Amino acid sequence: MTELTLQAASLLEDAIGKCCGAPVRAPLDRAEAVELAGLLKAVADPARLQLISILRTEVDCTACVNDLVPLVGLSQPTVSHHLKVLTDAGILARERRGTQARFTLVPERLAQIGQIFA
Amino acid sequence: MTELTLQAASLLEDAIGKCCGAPVRAPLDRAEAVELAGLLKAVADPARLQLISILRTEVDCTACVNDLVPLVGLSQPTVSHHLKVLTDAGILARERRGTQARFTLVPERLAQIGQIFA
Repeated sequence: MTELTLQAASLLEDAIGKCCGAPVRAPLDRAEAVELAGLLKAVADPARLQLISILRTEVDCTACVNDLVPLVGLSQPTVSHHLKVLTDAGILARERRGTQARFTLVPERLAQIGQIFA
Repeated sequence: MTELTLQAASLLEDAIGKCCGAPVRAPLDRAEAVELAGLLKAVADPARLQLISILRTEVDCTACVNDLVPLVGLSQPTVSHHLKVLTDAGILARERRGTQARFTLVPERLAQIGQIFA
């Protein structure tokens, strides 16, 4: 690179830094955007956002349906439905312990969604 | 706080830290969750995600419709529609410069969405 190109690159980086303070990365291609949109659709629901935010306060980010029902104020079948949508999207991991299913946040999946906003 | 309470709080913090590495914050209430779901619905679309990711690479995170059309490979009216959805949600700011409207990312709004995944 010439001195001028380097100077231009530095100016460009400064300008981008000033705007969003975000790391510079390549734009999403169509396939990445389709995948990310699917994940965002799974979380773009008030009850599901509440469930995620509650799970983040639980030890090991884990809880069973019966723990969550009183905290969101919805019926057990409704909470189960929302947990299934999040599990199908890979945002929660489901594990059976005795008679109960327990749900745990998958931090890598949350980070994947968060990168577009970071 | 007693020594035991402090110890329990530290253990709890460790457990949460181990799970998501995320800062501990209170769960979203219903009103916050409804607002955030609205923002997420606005971005949960492949074309709109591509537009956001392209704008992040532009100087001042700003571009006009004509700059964006060839980069996303969609028609001008379609791109204008997606830019309007993002502007209505407060994710973009629209400013008329001469004969063209220019769109700029609003970093505070992106950060508001990102906090649930951070």
